[in-house]
Amino acid sequence: MKAGKVLVAQGGGPTAVINQSLVGAVLEARKFSLVDRVYGAMFGVKGIVNEDFLDLTQETTHNLERVAATPGSALGSTRDKPDEAYCAEILKVLIAHNIRCFFYIGGNDSSDTLRIVQEFAQKQHYELITIHIPKTIDNDLTVNDHTPGYPSAARFVISAFAGLNLDNRALPGIYVGVVMGRNAGFLTAASALGRKCRDDGPHLIYLPERNFDINHFLADVKRVYDRHGRCVVAVSEGIHDTTGAPIVTTLGQQAGQMERDAHGNIQLSGTGALADLLTDSIKRGLGIKRVRGDTFGYVQRSFLGVVSDVDQREAREVGEKACQFALWHGASGSVTIHRVGNYSVEYRLDPLVAVAGKTKVMPDAFINSSGTDVTDAFQLYLQPLLGSRMPETFRLRAPIVPKVLRK
Amino acid sequence: MKAGKVLVAQGGGPTAVINQSLVGAVLEARKFSLVDRVYGAMFGVKGIVNEDFLDLTQETTHNLERVAATPGSALGSTRDKPDEAYCAEILKVLIAHNIRCFFYIGGNDSSDTLRIVQEFAQKQHYELITIHIPKTIDNDLTVNDHTPGYPSAARFVISAFAGLNLDNRALPGIYVGVVMGRNAGFLTAASALGRKCRDDGPHLIYLPERNFDINHFLADVKRVYDRHGRCVVAVSEGIHDTTGAPIVTTLGQQAGQMERDAHGNIQLSGTGALADLLTDSIKRGLGIKRVRGDTFGYVQRSFLGVVSDVDQREAREVGEKACQFALWHGASGSVTIHRVGNYSVEYRLDPLVAVAGKTKVMPDAFINSSGTDVTDAFQLYLQPLLGSRMPETFRLRAPIVPKVLRK
Repeated sequence: MKAGKVLVAQGGGPTAVINQSLVGAVLEARKFSLVDRVYGAMFGVKGIVNEDFLDLTQETTHNLERVAATPGSALGSTRDKPDEAYCAEILKVLIAHNIRCFFYIGGNDSSDTLRIVQEFAQKQHYELITIHIPKTIDNDLTVNDHTPGYPSAARFVISAFAGLNLDNRALPGIYVGVVMGRNAGFLTAASALGRKCRDDGPHLIYLPERNFDINHFLADVKRVYDRHGRCVVAVSEGIHDTTGAPIVTTLGQQAGQMERDAHGNIQLSGTGALADLLTDSIKRGLGIKRVRGDTFGYVQRSFLGVVSDVDQREAREVGEKACQFALWHGASGSVTIHRVGNYSVEYRLDPLVAVAGKTKVMPDAFINSSGTDVTDAFQLYLQPLLGSRMPETFRLRAPIVPKVLRK
Repeated sequence: MKAGKVLVAQGGGPTAVINQSLVGAVLEARKFSLVDRVYGAMFGVKGIVNEDFLDLTQETTHNLERVAATPGSALGSTRDKPDEAYCAEILKVLIAHNIRCFFYIGGNDSSDTLRIVQEFAQKQHYELITIHIPKTIDNDLTVNDHTPGYPSAARFVISAFAGLNLDNRALPGIYVGVVMGRNAGFLTAASALGRKCRDDGPHLIYLPERNFDINHFLADVKRVYDRHGRCVVAVSEGIHDTTGAPIVTTLGQQAGQMERDAHGNIQLSGTGALADLLTDSIKRGLGIKRVRGDTFGYVQRSFLGVVSDVDQREAREVGEKACQFALWHGASGSVTIHRVGNYSVEYRLDPLVAVAGKTKVMPDAFINSSGTDVTDAFQLYLQPLLGSRMPETFRLRAPIVPKVLRK
């Protein structure tokens, strides 16, 4: 890296460990004499074009460590997906501040932004290192074995379903929990790891990797309910029919009011519509009275105190490695995570184009043949990511007392 | 107590610590030679009339300890509110099994059931001790300073809002979180303790103790949004207008489809309707684009691993005390919790009628004059109940960098 400043920014949805990556990059960058300042951009790329920077060189190590353990994006984030003109503005600001290294922590959109900025910098012969630091609870980045943020969100989903299964067992009925994940079902699939006994829920898991049919769904629920007298269902917010249309849009009149985001996507989170549609269908279609549905919503990605220590460690390391790749090797790219043991990972630097704008979904080997559950392979994949001190559930196993009156 | 059997049952909604009370009563009862068996009724009073009992005398102490730390009702629960004929059936079964002591862990309905059973037993000159062991996340039992189950649910709500505030700060907009509590706002009010800095949310808190007006609500949200550029709102599911009609019923056509439970109450939990109504009103009324709403639903009362150790200890003790009142003093009643220090409690036995069928709501001293926030008195009331190792949030405090291009 050429002598100058390092800039770090955070983009997209916050996670429980995104600040670990921020702090990993900042603390490592502060060790190098080539780096005269470490800046943080407020609210992602939006903060860059507005020149809203914090001087993180003047933040205490102690407070950085505390911020690392805090969920959410400490610098602020953005949903802006810059076009070429926007990227040209970004580069102009980087040059004005003599920023020679730009770390962007985010998903595949963030990687794509860096790719464009890097191209412009080369055209203008401005020496700039751009490194993408991976983050997303959806776990949908290509090349990576998994993505920081996912294990902690998975831990939330598992703890939620483990508890909801006990609740449903105590007061039997149908329960439908809607989990985040537009295209990839990794987070919804995690619910399977909340099971312990053979009859524990979730009994059915619906993923965006498979087409959803409301009649098959009702038949599945009825089969489980007839067998266990209850049924817990995990549903991805991204479930869709054979044409790819989200199930939530089949809500008739409400479909017309669906909000679209800057990327033209329909709003799936922050509304209880899908859970309500599915529970209404069950009440009407199966005539079952106690049917409840919740949409986990934003709680699952920001909940304070539910975090995987493996996820924390890896999120910290991808930040630190980004800095090492930049400072020792002068290389641009995307930091990626590769599983090399059970359980052990190593970090590599891949070209930005390998990750930029691409989406990974669950491989077929992780979904069972019925399409409503996961395989052992998926459980082996996720288990080591969840970290230590995962709470466990226990049941009474006392013998049943013989009846006296009703023999 | 006359020599014979002890019966324990669990009623109403499960909590994170209701099994502590079960295990407290069982372990203590097993020490007395007067007690020849300790039975557990499966699915509350329903299990009694069906003679569905487990012999908890034959459960290991080790597993009981593990079950105590597991959320949900390990024996199963019920929403049945027995009438006199039902109570007569219960007594018949108690007599047939020579059950001389009946502990029912539940809310004010459970207490009322015991009151009727006790009356019938006295009329038939059957020596029976009935003790109500308090439990409810709503914290709405009279006489008690607070109720086991509430502190752990409050801890969930606090952790959720502390995280949601950080999420909303990173991606500014309006966020509405709907919290359980039909008549009492204690659980919604807990959200206030997730705040740390002056501009942290929830910025507005709506409780069922105050009438809700949609126009005032929109004006409140606008005022906060104009000031902070964002707004986090905590809303109780039980908010209602001046006539007492739940706000969720003002949903027009959907109101006609509202489900009523066995008590004639409209279904408030397990549907995202209220959050969606409020976020739609904000979008339409204030023209703000990024508006999100979640209904916490069942996750908040059963989540695995979020529990207050103070709540665990007290839930265990009310179970143990119930047994001591019965075995040492032969007294029937309701175990109640009284605060006698900061922080220290003692347990008393009050008459069943003092608690049965009554509901406590938040006192005026806990709600501020605007009606949209809590007072210091409430924060001092709740703080010691939350237990140890409550996670904390931290912010960056680095200095802002002077602009170069846009001075």
